[in-house]
Amino acid sequence: MRRPRRKAEDTRAEILDMAERVFTERGIAGSSIAHVAQALGMSPANVFKHFHSKVALADAICQRSIENMAAQLQALNVEEPAPDRLRSVAHQLMAMHLAAFKTAPYMIEMLLILSETEMASGARYGEMIEGLFAGLIRHGIDSNVYYCRDIPARSRAVAAAFVTILHPVFLVRTPMDELETRCDEIVELVNIALQNPLAK
Amino acid sequence: MRRPRRKAEDTRAEILDMAERVFTERGIAGSSIAHVAQALGMSPANVFKHFHSKVALADAICQRSIENMAAQLQALNVEEPAPDRLRSVAHQLMAMHLAAFKTAPYMIEMLLILSETEMASGARYGEMIEGLFAGLIRHGIDSNVYYCRDIPARSRAVAAAFVTILHPVFLVRTPMDELETRCDEIVELVNIALQNPLAK
Repeated sequence: MRRPRRKAEDTRAEILDMAERVFTERGIAGSSIAHVAQALGMSPANVFKHFHSKVALADAICQRSIENMAAQLQALNVEEPAPDRLRSVAHQLMAMHLAAFKTAPYMIEMLLILSETEMASGARYGEMIEGLFAGLIRHGIDSNVYYCRDIPARSRAVAAAFVTILHPVFLVRTPMDELETRCDEIVELVNIALQNPLAK
Repeated sequence: MRRPRRKAEDTRAEILDMAERVFTERGIAGSSIAHVAQALGMSPANVFKHFHSKVALADAICQRSIENMAAQLQALNVEEPAPDRLRSVAHQLMAMHLAAFKTAPYMIEMLLILSETEMASGARYGEMIEGLFAGLIRHGIDSNVYYCRDIPARSRAVAAAFVTILHPVFLVRTPMDELETRCDEIVELVNIALQNPLAK
């Protein structure tokens, strides 16, 4: 049995879980805070105390899924040489994005419809991806296989280069074998750039 | 005064010009073949003789604008060394895409809404962009500044790497200075990749 006085954090997580279900069933455009409240047996006012708008709710769901992704990526094997590591991470990232868009199609709706609103999760996502590539580049430099003077600039360019295997606009209607080939071709381009000793 | 019997090609061009105007005014979703016919003072049946659907019409407009873009790009100065040429072409391409989306916002609608339909112009666009980069890479190899074993694969990866400065999803809401920096950073990544002598 639930304790009558629960922590705000637990309520927040419970609201997010239910919002994910409601968004999955009805789509974001067809959902409202009231729908989420009703599904929880809560008053809309109670949900509003935690999330001031549907966009804030969508934003928080994205944040949570980005944090999950970042945690999974950190758990990946880091023993490989840098160029192999880049290949593994790129394919893993692509698989995670594909899985997310498959199990939660409202994520695509969020990206396409709500991209006009400034969502904190958008910036957080950019940081996560660029930070990920910055870490890979640093690892390669430390082991003398990568050369790079400006890691932040290079990480941004690398993140941009991988967009067609991460963004749903390019991802969802492309056959899997084509995606795998494309991913390998971009990995190869990025690896020969990072391995160019003249860029030292 | 118009000659009563005109060539099919002229009628086709006239329909395309008017369709561009109608699409600009009403958007693609709000336009029909009937609207275009009415604006031309033609019967819808006459328009249908040339274009069997609104999508076919949109496709033909895209084709024409891709051909114009390709012609403009071919006229660009080719006297620069390959790495500078890549930089010029990338910035020029970005400027052309920005201009197209600004003067013809229905192009964005076409890309976003009609991307589920198989349009011949989509394939033609991919060929144009990849062919452009293949030409630049070949030029660099001929002048001994670029190294590349598999030109088609490398061209595909380079085209993918530049997507965030060409596709409206990334283009239309990004400030100009940020776009210029991003373009330069991707050019730098691609140039050091193509200049890596180890990729010979």
